[in-house]
Amino acid sequence: MILRMSQLFVRTLRDDPADAEVPSHRLLVRAGYIRRAAPGIYTWLPLGLRVYRKVEQIVRDEMDAIGAQELQFPALLPKEPYEATNRWTEYGDGIFRLQDRKGADYLLGPTHEEMFTLTVKDLYSSYKDLPVWLYQIQTKYRDEARPRAGLMRGREFVMKDSYSFDVDDAGLERSYEAHRSAYVRIFDRLGFDYAIVKATSGAMGGSRSEEFLARLDVGEDTYVRSPGGYAANVEAVTTPAPDPLPYDDVPAAHAEDTPATPTIATLVDHLNAAFPREDRPWTAADTLKNVLLMLTHPDGTREPLAVGLPGDREVDQKRLEGQLEPIEVAPMTDEELTAFPALVKGYIGPAHEGRTILGEESETGIRYLVDPRVVTGTRWVTGANVEGQHVIDLVAGRDFTPDGTIEAAEVRAGDPAPDGSGPLELARGIEMGHVFQLGRKYAEALGLKVLDENGKLVTVTMGSYGIGVSRAVPVIAEYNHDEAGLVWPREVAPADVHVVAAGKGEELFAAAERISTELSSAGLDVVYDDRAGKVSPGVKFKDAELIGVPTIVVVGKGLADGVVEIKDRRSGEREEVAVDAVVARTLAAVRG
Amino acid sequence: MILRMSQLFVRTLRDDPADAEVPSHRLLVRAGYIRRAAPGIYTWLPLGLRVYRKVEQIVRDEMDAIGAQELQFPALLPKEPYEATNRWTEYGDGIFRLQDRKGADYLLGPTHEEMFTLTVKDLYSSYKDLPVWLYQIQTKYRDEARPRAGLMRGREFVMKDSYSFDVDDAGLERSYEAHRSAYVRIFDRLGFDYAIVKATSGAMGGSRSEEFLARLDVGEDTYVRSPGGYAANVEAVTTPAPDPLPYDDVPAAHAEDTPATPTIATLVDHLNAAFPREDRPWTAADTLKNVLLMLTHPDGTREPLAVGLPGDREVDQKRLEGQLEPIEVAPMTDEELTAFPALVKGYIGPAHEGRTILGEESETGIRYLVDPRVVTGTRWVTGANVEGQHVIDLVAGRDFTPDGTIEAAEVRAGDPAPDGSGPLELARGIEMGHVFQLGRKYAEALGLKVLDENGKLVTVTMGSYGIGVSRAVPVIAEYNHDEAGLVWPREVAPADVHVVAAGKGEELFAAAERISTELSSAGLDVVYDDRAGKVSPGVKFKDAELIGVPTIVVVGKGLADGVVEIKDRRSGEREEVAVDAVVARTLAAVRG
Repeated sequence: MILRMSQLFVRTLRDDPADAEVPSHRLLVRAGYIRRAAPGIYTWLPLGLRVYRKVEQIVRDEMDAIGAQELQFPALLPKEPYEATNRWTEYGDGIFRLQDRKGADYLLGPTHEEMFTLTVKDLYSSYKDLPVWLYQIQTKYRDEARPRAGLMRGREFVMKDSYSFDVDDAGLERSYEAHRSAYVRIFDRLGFDYAIVKATSGAMGGSRSEEFLARLDVGEDTYVRSPGGYAANVEAVTTPAPDPLPYDDVPAAHAEDTPATPTIATLVDHLNAAFPREDRPWTAADTLKNVLLMLTHPDGTREPLAVGLPGDREVDQKRLEGQLEPIEVAPMTDEELTAFPALVKGYIGPAHEGRTILGEESETGIRYLVDPRVVTGTRWVTGANVEGQHVIDLVAGRDFTPDGTIEAAEVRAGDPAPDGSGPLELARGIEMGHVFQLGRKYAEALGLKVLDENGKLVTVTMGSYGIGVSRAVPVIAEYNHDEAGLVWPREVAPADVHVVAAGKGEELFAAAERISTELSSAGLDVVYDDRAGKVSPGVKFKDAELIGVPTIVVVGKGLADGVVEIKDRRSGEREEVAVDAVVARTLAAVRG
Repeated sequence: MILRMSQLFVRTLRDDPADAEVPSHRLLVRAGYIRRAAPGIYTWLPLGLRVYRKVEQIVRDEMDAIGAQELQFPALLPKEPYEATNRWTEYGDGIFRLQDRKGADYLLGPTHEEMFTLTVKDLYSSYKDLPVWLYQIQTKYRDEARPRAGLMRGREFVMKDSYSFDVDDAGLERSYEAHRSAYVRIFDRLGFDYAIVKATSGAMGGSRSEEFLARLDVGEDTYVRSPGGYAANVEAVTTPAPDPLPYDDVPAAHAEDTPATPTIATLVDHLNAAFPREDRPWTAADTLKNVLLMLTHPDGTREPLAVGLPGDREVDQKRLEGQLEPIEVAPMTDEELTAFPALVKGYIGPAHEGRTILGEESETGIRYLVDPRVVTGTRWVTGANVEGQHVIDLVAGRDFTPDGTIEAAEVRAGDPAPDGSGPLELARGIEMGHVFQLGRKYAEALGLKVLDENGKLVTVTMGSYGIGVSRAVPVIAEYNHDEAGLVWPREVAPADVHVVAAGKGEELFAAAERISTELSSAGLDVVYDDRAGKVSPGVKFKDAELIGVPTIVVVGKGLADGVVEIKDRRSGEREEVAVDAVVARTLAAVRG
């Protein structure tokens, strides 16, 4: 087919849109692929829709190839199933809620676990029906607090979401592997440079969980990798606990005056000045920082929590939240702190002079979780719960006993990989896919059971597999652009060839028209820049580069000598070919 | 491809779903094509999605063929454009509204006039850019008061909506004709028995407006047709006004006691008993019924309205509302009536003994519109605005003068066609498409202007063209079913052939498998009922009939004699063919 630039609903822009932070966003808007309709909500213009559809079809092909079956749930969903699984509440502000004219509650589906589970329950009842793999490619809604980077994090977007249903764990393992391998094929076909990283399954429970991250500096996810091949998103990194240390020689804890030490840095300076160590100077890693939090459980009940971590590490909010999901976390306010007179702001510590201040069995009763590095025998400087005083030589396991550990500290380059495969390196990426073993959480909540071989009712186990389909378009654009514009890979390009009538005169346009028609008849999709009048060849070349169709055919001055030019958009290589040979040569270029 | 019944996500039901009123709804649920998720909201199961996609592709093909360009707007839309056109208010309860986490107002798009208009305004600026025809195939939302008949009137549904943009009326006419002809091709391909009827464009303004109604007794729309070829939906029917009558001989109006005449029937009986006519008995058509309404304008202001119509006709609420849109209409309440002491409930009339009661210039000041049959010289019996009294011989144009006419009365079989083409007949149908000349309403409201040939800014004129894509599936099912189940036309069938392994034994299943594989290799989509074990041939036959694939191949007892059976689902014709010939014979049947 031929898309004529004189009629194609596209207008390229010279200037970057004001709100575009990343190259893909800038170029997709400038080249006329998308337009913003509202924050995080976009319109696909004709060129964009063509690329999107090709990506969608690649995903569909590979899902069909493993025997997954496509269906389609509504986007507008009743509240009840989401109440049964408690997600109506758990999602907080993250979903769009609405009421119909009768006052019944609805939501715009952010994911469809409940609907898949209920539909399988509706149709199936025996182990003989399983496994079954179901998927949909569907518009989803999430009320993101910070939509960004165009289609990369939108509020209306398209996901392919699949679920597998198995009667036992061995079946789930097979279903998981089949989906994982389909994802490898999909992301290979999309040409992504991706990492498969260990992930936490968050609130979902389950066991195996991996993310497919497209490696991109503009990505919003940080992940780690080790020389030995370990890869995980930072939320999933576990901290290897050191061996306990002997502490027989450690002197008894002693409180000291530490005036004017509002920060860890000033405290360390004061320690080195007033209480110098003989072996080495004090560092922030010698201090134990205690952070007070207030948790809100999904049912609304609230609970204080204290987290202790080495003073040289910041709290990583995402890691902390990931550990506690679906519980919500907020810093304890000064007002809330007044309920605990034993705690002195700025000088909080777990114990002091025989008093136990933090921990479920302590004076305050506040649960106290510590970083895994805080093992028995480690010595700390920490608050004395007295204004202007810290305790020195407070020993874990001797002077205080935490209620457990928590992964709340930032992961840093150089930290050891948990599997012993070497020091971690940090990298940026964007989540394109997630495969994980959901287990029986939804099946239990919604009563999805089948009869097993022995006629006994067993709860079904599920796998969950998602791909960000609309997100893939800007990610491809991130990988495939240069200064001049987009450079689409053939498999998802909006057309195969872009013919430019670069000049004037009936003869030139007739030749360009004929070439376009012949290429179209040969089965190619052709953008033909047939614009006459004031549109100069220079403008047409710029537009062709910006739009980024992989092969450009220029019908220009050379026509007088019987030649036209074929240009490869990616390499920039140009080739002059005889007019009679251009169709065959272009077909060869397109078909590789 | 092969869809194996042992794995296909489908379960047929023996019983009709309790909420299904029409055959298509019953069968689509029973045969496993759709499932209800909420009132008016459905899930497409795999078989249903296959049919839906084929319908969608037919619509897309024909839109592309006329040169319309596909794009895709979001479904979640900001309020602002809909406020600019006043539709945020006009839609009343009919749309889903919601707020995001920041309290900004959004709606789920019921139609996208605003978005199309704004996007063309964003990209285009010159008459040279026009005409442009844009369309999308998209999920829409309307909060229907009475969702019904499954997918026929849902609250989440798919529409193809197109808009044409032209610089002048002649261009709009050409765009309209192109879309109209594409619609004819689409509905022909879908095999609909349809009528193209004149329609009102309601609140939209504009001029030409036609609906494509699929003729179906279960349809919710009534339309009329005449022997001479007139066809219109009832809202669009205009009543030919009779010629004025001479009234010189009519006696002066006189009020009479009419006790105990609460209804028109009792009034007519009383008239015939107490005031018999010499020429013929009184009938309800001699009486003038006056209906009091309260109007609410989009801006919230309220206004009373009186409507007068012959007593033998009921008010047709849809016709009345269609005339007044976007103004909302409600009956005047007793409380509201107390503001007009001149009006006596049950005895309301426009005039009495020199007093003028209804009309803008009357005592009450209530605007008074009458049925077009109430022409000058017509004589009426109507209320005297006195308890227990009616006026006889009240003459229009002599004793009262209405403020204008309104089409509020029901249309009845036998009424004359407005174009003189004979008596009207009533028929039922369901709206499948609507083409109409929207004109400049949206372009004006949203400032869509382009420079014309003379460099002058002119407002663009638009056409609006819609097709109910998801609705087409149940409509096809209404046309194509029998007692045993669905009978899909080939072009939209979920598969080409349904192979049934009807019996036992390895040999039989091997033969059925081989036939299925060969048919699939030849490019057909095959449902293969490979279920072993307890599923009897009878159950498999019933399922095949219910699912409704056009050709059924039965591999059964005949296999011992080297024959299998090919059955045409629609005609029921069976043919025994040699096993070796079955693939060729089936291909011939499928490919016609």
